[in-house]
Amino acid sequence: MLSEREIIKLITGKTGAPRDDVALGIGDDAAVLQPRSGHELVVCADTLVAGVHFPDGTAPSAIGHKALAVNLSDLAAMGAEPGWALLALTLPEADEAWLREFATGFSELATRFEVMLVGGDTTRGPLTVSVTALGQVPAGGALRRAGARPGDALCVSGTLGDAALALAQWRAGGVRDVELAARLDLPEPRVALGLALRGIAHAAIDVSDGLLSDLRKLIEADGLGATVEIEQLPRSERFAASGGTTEMMLGGGDDYELLFALPAAALPGLAAHSVTRIGTVEAERGVRCVDGTGRPVKVTAAGYEHFG
Amino acid sequence: MLSEREIIKLITGKTGAPRDDVALGIGDDAAVLQPRSGHELVVCADTLVAGVHFPDGTAPSAIGHKALAVNLSDLAAMGAEPGWALLALTLPEADEAWLREFATGFSELATRFEVMLVGGDTTRGPLTVSVTALGQVPAGGALRRAGARPGDALCVSGTLGDAALALAQWRAGGVRDVELAARLDLPEPRVALGLALRGIAHAAIDVSDGLLSDLRKLIEADGLGATVEIEQLPRSERFAASGGTTEMMLGGGDDYELLFALPAAALPGLAAHSVTRIGTVEAERGVRCVDGTGRPVKVTAAGYEHFG
Repeated sequence: MLSEREIIKLITGKTGAPRDDVALGIGDDAAVLQPRSGHELVVCADTLVAGVHFPDGTAPSAIGHKALAVNLSDLAAMGAEPGWALLALTLPEADEAWLREFATGFSELATRFEVMLVGGDTTRGPLTVSVTALGQVPAGGALRRAGARPGDALCVSGTLGDAALALAQWRAGGVRDVELAARLDLPEPRVALGLALRGIAHAAIDVSDGLLSDLRKLIEADGLGATVEIEQLPRSERFAASGGTTEMMLGGGDDYELLFALPAAALPGLAAHSVTRIGTVEAERGVRCVDGTGRPVKVTAAGYEHFG
Repeated sequence: MLSEREIIKLITGKTGAPRDDVALGIGDDAAVLQPRSGHELVVCADTLVAGVHFPDGTAPSAIGHKALAVNLSDLAAMGAEPGWALLALTLPEADEAWLREFATGFSELATRFEVMLVGGDTTRGPLTVSVTALGQVPAGGALRRAGARPGDALCVSGTLGDAALALAQWRAGGVRDVELAARLDLPEPRVALGLALRGIAHAAIDVSDGLLSDLRKLIEADGLGATVEIEQLPRSERFAASGGTTEMMLGGGDDYELLFALPAAALPGLAAHSVTRIGTVEAERGVRCVDGTGRPVKVTAAGYEHFG
């Protein structure tokens, strides 16, 4: 059982990437940061609760990774370059091995994205991990949910539904596919893509609640609509081979991919990234799903079926 | 029972002070802020857990107030001007009346200090309130725990021990003194004093864990020591009249006053603030408590007694 001082000491050894723009990190009443001039600050906070946002029994390193990753995904959706993070950690008991693994998972991801942990708080209570992430964009350059235009290509990064399928496998209690489980436990924030979309995409959002749900937030920000081509939805090989459904791709959460709208002519410029065009933004409100021939389809739990 | 969307809508109506330097507030993947050029950013995060940081039955408005206040107190200890906050709220059930009162308590304090709530997260789970506060200081101007010098006057704002006495009254289950209870439930962050200390104080910290505990953090940052004159400790009339003890002033937490070190000659410049000199920083390590005649005293649960 660790004291708060020992917890802080352990975490202070795993703060990710050291940064020149941190005048004062962990250990005072607050951190002092030196944002770049001519830039705006981009800030978000997301909380993970045990049993709600990750299954009981999730590896502590995965919890540490995911708690930061979901926030870096939000920064990516804004086109922001991540810089700093704060960690508010509530723990039922201060188990050293647990905490060491947790901090390692957090720190490894932070290091990879040049993020430095600069502060936070540890408290006793039910396991809750709340991370605040801070990043920067050139002034006026942030991507927003609003801004899509009729005719824009609607695109998504990576593949959809893997995390939802992993969660279904976990709930079924059978064999868990390791690759799919990694998509659920260790989401990869699309930071490089977010930076590449600056000045190119008209609007962007990260897909955390499920594609259709997040798509509605994107188009409703401008009072627009969209058509989604079901057969274009990007799926991984494991997903296709392991019984993944269309519903998981459209409604499953935890994808942490980027969904964005941009002129189709800009797509070749994103060839270095895994990006798939899945539809088109339209002036007519609402989301319409169509099959490969353009016929409207209705999505059900089992997949999709043609209307009437 | 409110949906997450309804919770966000309710909170979005109570975001404290609107600010021109918020390019994008609640409602996107992240907020976009415009820090002042030539300034550094000061950032902290503190969490309140039900039953740990406030008694069960605490008014929701007080929880909202305190969750922000403890963070503004940290910013004050850095000499920072507060600007923005994020709120990560974990709730067992989304009770509208509770949430409305909570948000009102948060928002009233935020408005008073020109703080705008710009983001955060609401999740289902055991009641936990984690706030991140952001402020600004002119570059290089932040107060730190380190920097005290031998011979500095050691000062504290306001009065000590009121919150500890209120907690003792609450635990005893008897009548609660309303004024003392307000010191526990509705701490007042010393923001104006923190700003006044910039360029004057050599070191500062906020008193949240108890005077002696926080004093040790201050002087140990420089390998120094201090003498504290017990009879100089500032106490409120209610505290003195209601059986408050020296131990409560020295060891009780939740004061949220500022403790700072500065040249005694600078004290008259702080006449507009409630400030009491309680001792002196010294080169000799350790904290020595003395009575009015300078004789060393030992502090016990009942008060203090002379050694030997």
